[in-house]
Amino acid sequence: MQFTSAIVEQAAEALSAFPGIGRRTALRLVMYLLKRPENEVAGMAGAILRLKTELQLCNICGNVSDTETCNVCSNPIRNQGVVCVVEDFSDQMAIEGTSQFSGVYHILGGLIAPMDGIGPEDLNIANLIARVGNGEIAEVILAFSATVEGDTTMFYIAKKLRSLPVKISCIARGISVGGEIEYADEITLGRSLLNRTEYKV
Amino acid sequence: MQFTSAIVEQAAEALSAFPGIGRRTALRLVMYLLKRPENEVAGMAGAILRLKTELQLCNICGNVSDTETCNVCSNPIRNQGVVCVVEDFSDQMAIEGTSQFSGVYHILGGLIAPMDGIGPEDLNIANLIARVGNGEIAEVILAFSATVEGDTTMFYIAKKLRSLPVKISCIARGISVGGEIEYADEITLGRSLLNRTEYKV
Repeated sequence: MQFTSAIVEQAAEALSAFPGIGRRTALRLVMYLLKRPENEVAGMAGAILRLKTELQLCNICGNVSDTETCNVCSNPIRNQGVVCVVEDFSDQMAIEGTSQFSGVYHILGGLIAPMDGIGPEDLNIANLIARVGNGEIAEVILAFSATVEGDTTMFYIAKKLRSLPVKISCIARGISVGGEIEYADEITLGRSLLNRTEYKV
Repeated sequence: MQFTSAIVEQAAEALSAFPGIGRRTALRLVMYLLKRPENEVAGMAGAILRLKTELQLCNICGNVSDTETCNVCSNPIRNQGVVCVVEDFSDQMAIEGTSQFSGVYHILGGLIAPMDGIGPEDLNIANLIARVGNGEIAEVILAFSATVEGDTTMFYIAKKLRSLPVKISCIARGISVGGEIEYADEITLGRSLLNRTEYKV
């Protein structure tokens, strides 16, 4: 097979770096770009480049931000006394998508994973301790995935914050809404029994 | 839902323009880019931009090319006397992928589709006629999709070339390799009977 254009080949190669996008799909995307007007394609290239050249991390929560302080941390309507700690930006987006949280966030940039060589010092944890230490935070919600790494990180942070006058909570784990008991895995079902909550009528 | 970054939002917006990529997937791609080093992301942006700024069309076949004449048309190993006419670059790539064709191509840039307002004058057909008219082409292979537009275009070009001393052929249509007669659609099966070929042992 002989490519007529190295430029096309390089673009396909670059796009196939995306997760879930193989060589064939990448070529289809290139084909699409070839048919679009130049300003649209230049706009896309610019938007991608700006992710690296203009984006910064919020000096309070560590989230991606266009400005020194992100628009959640600087929003007077949000409850600055409740901090939800998450692994990364995508988890923050997922929680934001529920519209159930009006506090602010703290982004760790990962979870403690000794197997991958990621320790607490590699994460945005020291800033969290300092932030809580300032005394203006009433509650810290730990919202991590229900994995070994999530549990480890939760345990580590809770221990670090224990001596400070702050309420520490974690998100509920149990049967998913709409989930049937018959098909729930044993560990989840077992935990949901142990962690049962009072039912008020 | 409150985005913490317009830059992230714009990048997701730009990537969701791709066919088959929705908002959620686009965000996942942005997340991936955020984690990659700057030179890699800049490379991708550059590769996309070059599709519009550096790519040109081959002055012989009309295919995308990095140079004035594409590397198929200028390749002395390829049979310059057999021209395979295709709808666009993706069809050329598909045929090239079979490794069954050693001739050259002619890219129309579309098919005749009166319903979409695309007539012969909107396509790269006049150049094909001129190219065959020069007298160095022995055979023209029409390789279009088996659609109404493909058939229309095939008929139009064959009629235009009829008076010239060139052999005109079209790719075979029939039951796919591995296809079972029981499940073949009636039109394909009917045509494959009408267009039966001699079986030589």
